Amino acid sequence: MYYIGIDVGGTNVKAGLITENGEIMKRAVRPTLAKRESDAIAADMIALVKEVAEGIDAANIHSVGIGIPGACDDKTGMVVNTANINFHMYPLGEKIQAATGFSVYLGNDANCAALGEYYALPEKVQDMIFITLGTGVGGGLILNGKLYTGFNGIAGEVGHIMLKDGGEKCGCGRRGCWEAYASVSALIRQTRDYALAHPDSALRAACGENMEAVSGKTAFVLARKGDADGKAVVDTWISYVAGGIVDMVNIFQPALLLIGGAISKEGEMLLNPIRSFVAQNSYSPDVAKTKIDVAALGNDAGLIGAAFLGRK
Amino acid sequence: MYYIGIDVGGTNVKAGLITENGEIMKRAVRPTLAKRESDAIAADMIALVKEVAEGIDAANIHSVGIGIPGACDDKTGMVVNTANINFHMYPLGEKIQAATGFSVYLGNDANCAALGEYYALPEKVQDMIFITLGTGVGGGLILNGKLYTGFNGIAGEVGHIMLKDGGEKCGCGRRGCWEAYASVSALIRQTRDYALAHPDSALRAACGENMEAVSGKTAFVLARKGDADGKAVVDTWISYVAGGIVDMVNIFQPALLLIGGAISKEGEMLLNPIRSFVAQNSYSPDVAKTKIDVAALGNDAGLIGAAFLGRK
Repeated sequence: MYYIGIDVGGTNVKAGLITENGEIMKRAVRPTLAKRESDAIAADMIALVKEVAEGIDAANIHSVGIGIPGACDDKTGMVVNTANINFHMYPLGEKIQAATGFSVYLGNDANCAALGEYYALPEKVQDMIFITLGTGVGGGLILNGKLYTGFNGIAGEVGHIMLKDGGEKCGCGRRGCWEAYASVSALIRQTRDYALAHPDSALRAACGENMEAVSGKTAFVLARKGDADGKAVVDTWISYVAGGIVDMVNIFQPALLLIGGAISKEGEMLLNPIRSFVAQNSYSPDVAKTKIDVAALGNDAGLIGAAFLGRK
Repeated sequence: MYYIGIDVGGTNVKAGLITENGEIMKRAVRPTLAKRESDAIAADMIALVKEVAEGIDAANIHSVGIGIPGACDDKTGMVVNTANINFHMYPLGEKIQAATGFSVYLGNDANCAALGEYYALPEKVQDMIFITLGTGVGGGLILNGKLYTGFNGIAGEVGHIMLKDGGEKCGCGRRGCWEAYASVSALIRQTRDYALAHPDSALRAACGENMEAVSGKTAFVLARKGDADGKAVVDTWISYVAGGIVDMVNIFQPALLLIGGAISKEGEMLLNPIRSFVAQNSYSPDVAKTKIDVAALGNDAGLIGAAFLGRK
């Protein structure tokens, strides 16, 4: 049996034909051109489905799953809204189903990534929390072996839990959300602020004259070289990341918590301080402890997980 | 079929014989005498089970469930630890099972209260979050129709999510937990601090000369009479309560969130500002919204829910 996944991003719409084992047998991609009419974007998705399904007996294709960077209601097949793409209360599931004949499932992109990582685990667990650190902080909750999406389909917005009441402004309108401190965007802001406050530092030089060179890696690169300023920025940011992870552990006590997003490539330099912070700060009597690790699939997690949305 | 519940508190151990409908047919109680040997407390529990089971055919008793004010592992029947009672890595389940012949289930007290409230709902929902405001902030998570306890049995410590990073010291060792701001203990502290800062206020007078009269009700009583200082204290405290509820909604998007604890008797005066704060601050595109209400069962929720721990 094959599964078709579609991963909708701000730049590209990617499609893949996925095996039971999560291998990507065939790929296709089209530019999103996010400002277009919803119907034009949907038409490209239909073409992508046909492209990856070509030559495969339709009876061997289980379903199509679509990962959306926004809120969607899987029960009705409706994309409720997205921040950057022209989908608002748009019946995407129905459209794709009507045009392709396949069952169609919708999911939030972070939820899809969680599902992709979950199916890729070498050892299954019942409860796994996935967080992804990028422009924001996204999350996916696998509870009792299933993706948990709440009664309206949009659960798991873990980036929008409070870290510092009244603190930094968050995109959601609140002040002080975890995302406003622990996203890579926040790390970049923290790097820039630190550099400006330390004009003679190596960190300031690494940011470029007009701050054009600053990225989520800037402070990590210096910290690896033993630079105290780089380390200060990294340590502070990691304490924010770990602070929210403590919340996740205290709430869910999952067997496994996975950290995704490009920054997770920092590996042990990210993981070690998080693990010791969580060990020190989580509510933890003498019981088994959550394992904390980085995600395995990288960019393909969302595509593979989307494909598996319909998998029981 | 009957269910036997035991609710272990710091002062009393209560037992009840509960019907399928959640009615308490028979009650029995003994003092906890919390400093005693674990075995002595367990012996009283065994006596209580026999007392409420008397005259009932054992075949008509489904199981015994015990609500513990602390952490326990239902899989092993072990009480991991409690803050105030002499149970630490104590095999309570095994002891009670051996002495009574009934299957025994253990649960955290807040989880039991959540389960009791859940079975008492006039209309079933799939996902319900229960929070209880008292000495601390406790919680119980009913997800996909079942009590969620994580992989080690101690999930749902929602009081220990961060509200103000680096803020008030919490009993768990962290600074700034929700519990440190939104518990009734925190309300009392906030009332006292406000009163001391406003020595000529009616609120100061209501606290008594040596602060002996201050309780969780003090500010509410004055606020109901239109007193601006009482209202200020209540408003601030409610904003903390509601802040954490926003987190719960953003994470879980439950159909229902219930607020328990004696303070929930404040009813609409508590609920109305919480509902409007959550509506303003939660991540909420155009989807169905979580219903927020006060719990129905009061003190008996924990006893009834404990009885139902073994119910499938």
